[in-house]
Order: sequence, then structure tokens, then C-alpha cells
Amino acid sequence: MAQGLAKTGRSLMQEITSVSNNKIKEAAKLHQKKYRTESGLFLIEGYKPIFEAFQQKAHIETVYVTKDHIKKFGFITDKLVVVTDAVMEKISTTDTKPEAVAVAEQLKFGTDNIKNKKRIALIENVKDAGNLGTLIRSAAAFSIDAIVLCGDTTDVYNPKVVRSTVGALFKIPVVKADLNEVKKVFPSHKFVATVVNHKDVVKPETIDYKEPFVIMLGSEADGLTKEALKIADIKTTIPISSNTESLNLGVAASILFYISSKINFEMQTN
Amino acid sequence: MAQGLAKTGRSLMQEITSVSNNKIKEAAKLHQKKYRTESGLFLIEGYKPIFEAFQQKAHIETVYVTKDHIKKFGFITDKLVVVTDAVMEKISTTDTKPEAVAVAEQLKFGTDNIKNKKRIALIENVKDAGNLGTLIRSAAAFSIDAIVLCGDTTDVYNPKVVRSTVGALFKIPVVKADLNEVKKVFPSHKFVATVVNHKDVVKPETIDYKEPFVIMLGSEADGLTKEALKIADIKTTIPISSNTESLNLGVAASILFYISSKINFEMQTN
Repeated sequence: MAQGLAKTGRSLMQEITSVSNNKIKEAAKLHQKKYRTESGLFLIEGYKPIFEAFQQKAHIETVYVTKDHIKKFGFITDKLVVVTDAVMEKISTTDTKPEAVAVAEQLKFGTDNIKNKKRIALIENVKDAGNLGTLIRSAAAFSIDAIVLCGDTTDVYNPKVVRSTVGALFKIPVVKADLNEVKKVFPSHKFVATVVNHKDVVKPETIDYKEPFVIMLGSEADGLTKEALKIADIKTTIPISSNTESLNLGVAASILFYISSKINFEMQTN
Repeated sequence: MAQGLAKTGRSLMQEITSVSNNKIKEAAKLHQKKYRTESGLFLIEGYKPIFEAFQQKAHIETVYVTKDHIKKFGFITDKLVVVTDAVMEKISTTDTKPEAVAVAEQLKFGTDNIKNKKRIALIENVKDAGNLGTLIRSAAAFSIDAIVLCGDTTDVYNPKVVRSTVGALFKIPVVKADLNEVKKVFPSHKFVATVVNHKDVVKPETIDYKEPFVIMLGSEADGLTKEALKIADIKTTIPISSNTESLNLGVAASILFYISSKINFEMQTN
């Protein structure tokens, strides 16, 4: 049967065995940004991120799961649809098939939702999905309150970004906005531009992270644009060995988030 | 012609246009660990890492380059072989074709080469090539002197590792060894195990990085093995927000390297 009911444990669960099933085709389309934007949906792959999304009350439409892994998803039985390995391969984006793939609604945050937040990361033109995901994961770990994506940054609902956040995407608001809008939303925040090979930089450890701040990070290849540097109040750089050129962007961002959290934490406990 | 001489600038350069050419087949085999180990060779993809390898006096056998990019490789004309786009696609491992792919000899470091080094990173069972590459890049940036790979860690000559180091692989010795050997080579180093959810941890900032140390990092999924924890003198962990679980391994390693370099640097300048 291409679509039917499978008797699994106590409940009857929908089962899809055909890769040509319409729901499966729709899910596979979400690999592409175009369809994600049109539908407002995205994919969450693997047990941990799906569980995390569930806990953070994300709107999950469907969880496609292979038979072997049904038991793990007892927390969301009403959304489960059992699929074959071939179907799982069609809807997942990873080399190794995940236990499950969920279709969920994109979170709709605007600048209004974050205007009272103090610890902001502004990301401009970041292209690498892994870097963006890692950066979001570290932001959540180091108590950044919100992330603003500017310019031509990778879609945050790209499956690789979602995967690299390891669930952190559901713990921190991510907002798209343009540079001038960000400056208006946070008129008294200190805008800290991360640069490489610039003059007039301050050490990242000397910045007062008790005050509201926006840590700004630019693209892997070119750093922040001139427009972004214009709205910066100060510039900072992470000191590295003179015979090396640069750090991975996700790493540089994480170190700055770590420094901001550490100093903040010490201030609170002193 | 499948193989011949192309007149390019002033010199006659070898040209290969057939994907079935033996040299091309040999180069493509280096995508696999088995052939890398057998031959003692590996691939370096892209201008920057090839230039870096050249500067650090790596033994480069051949640089396969497409016609458009010959000029960039003026520093190594005697090794250039011009290839077609199809040949470049066959020997490269990336989605976007690199300007060039070099075949180079693996660097042969043993524990003897690093026994006088003070600032060591020990990596056990790390599986993700991107994580390992990022970690090596950060180690070079934060003045780690040598890296020791233990257990079942990804091959450092995996093309994705090489790529993620962005040339740093040629700036820092990477050695394979087992845990007991490492302990013998560094009998008076302080072995610092990085752990998650352990008791008896010290804050990473409180460790005296003026003294010789070995920062130990375990696998993404399971952390350090019991055997590794046995040779540890102290345990440390990076404090993160209570509602998040963990950091990306490359990030965690980089933050520890950063802390060790910073304190070391401050000590030197005070």
C-alpha cells in the first residue's frame, strides 16, 4: 500500500511507502529555499532537534519516522507518520539517514519581538550554513538574547543550518532586518564591529558587557561591509598568532560570545 | 590530445585532458584514506592552502590547474599540469571546483619531533572532518605547539580536514600516538581533560598556562574515554547557559586554546 494505516503498538499510525506520495513530495521540496519561503515551513532532521523543537513549543505539523525509531517519539505520537527507508532518504538531506524528519512552521520573529533585548548578535552576509548554525548554537550557550541577520545571509531554515544549531534555533529569536532598522531598534546599544587588520581596535575583553551591546560579524571572505562599519561605535579583533591569518567565523563569533558571557557572569556574582 | 604540452606564457606546460589518464586516476584515488595511507600522499585543494603548503616547504609533487588560473600559480610553475574542467571535477572533492588541486607528500612527524613542545592539544576519537580541521586552524592561531591524535580520530589528510585548516596544517606538527605513549613523552606536563557534566572541574581561566600542558578533547558524542580520563591531572569545562547542552567541539577546543594563549600572552607582557 502506498498510504495506509500501520498497527504500531496501541495506536493506528498513518504509513507512507511511496516516494511519489504528495505529502512526501511536498516535504522534499522544503530542501529548497524557494519552497520554504512560499510555504513558511521547514524541515527538522533527527531525534534531538525534533525533541528540542517540541519542548520549545514549535509548531510541528508532521514527524516522518522509520519503523525502527517509532518508540523514541512517544512524546509526539499524534504527529507521527511511518515511512520506509526509501521515503526517509527522499525527504532527508544528510548522507546518513536520520531517525525522523519533522515538517514545522517557521518561527515568525520581527524586530518588535526583540527591541527590549540587551545582548544582540548582528550577522551580515554570512554564507556558510555550518558557520551560521554553529554561531547560533554558541549564541544560545553564551546567553546572547537575539540574533539579527542582515544583508545576504544564508537562510536560517536551510536544513544544514537547522542541523548545526543542534536545537538552539528554538531557544533564541532570529530576526531578519536591514542595518538601518537595527540601529533604530537599538538606539542606545553599543555597536561592536568585529574586524581583522584594522587600526583603532579595542581588546574584546575590555568591553563593558553589562551595558546593552550588538556584536557585529561579517562574511567569511570580506568581513563587515562599509555600511555596517558606519553604524559601529567601536571595533574589536581577537588577537591571534602573527603567522596565521584568521579564525573560522563560527569560532570567532563563539569566542566573542564567550567573552561577553564570562564578564557579564563575573559582574553578576561579584 | 589526452596528454601533451600546452604553450602557456613562456614555458611549455604538460596538459591532461582525459579523465582516464593514469595520473588523474591516481590523484582521484587519494579521496580514499586507504590510498592516502598506501602512497603517503594527499590532496590540497584551492589556491590559498597550496600557497601556504609551498611557503611552509611541503613536498608538492604536482599542481593540477585549470587554464584560467595558471597565472596565480607563478610561484610553482615547474610543478604545474594544466587540466580541463572535467579532469578538475574528477580530482577535486568540493561542489565548487577549486582553481587547482595539488598532490603532496604527507608530513611525517613522530612523538620524537614534539617531545620538547610545551603547549599540546590531545584529540581522541574525533569523527567530524570539519571539526578536526577547525580545531587545527584555531590551534595554530592560538600558539598551540603540537597536536596529538589518539584513538580512532579522522584521518588528518582527509581532503575536508585539509580544507578546513585553511593552510594551518602546514604550520603545526600533527602526530598520531596512543594515550600511554603521550603520557610517557610528556611526563611532567599537566594533562587537562575537557569534560561536560562532571564534578571536580576547575574553571579553564584558572589554569596556569605558563607551565607545560596537554589540553585533552574527546569525541563529539561521548567525550573522552575512561582511559583518557585516567591520565588526566585535572578536569575543566566551559561554563554555558543552563538551558543549553553543549558546544560544537571545534568551538569548545578553540575557546580553550584562546584562553590558554591569552593568559600566556598577558603573563609575557606583564
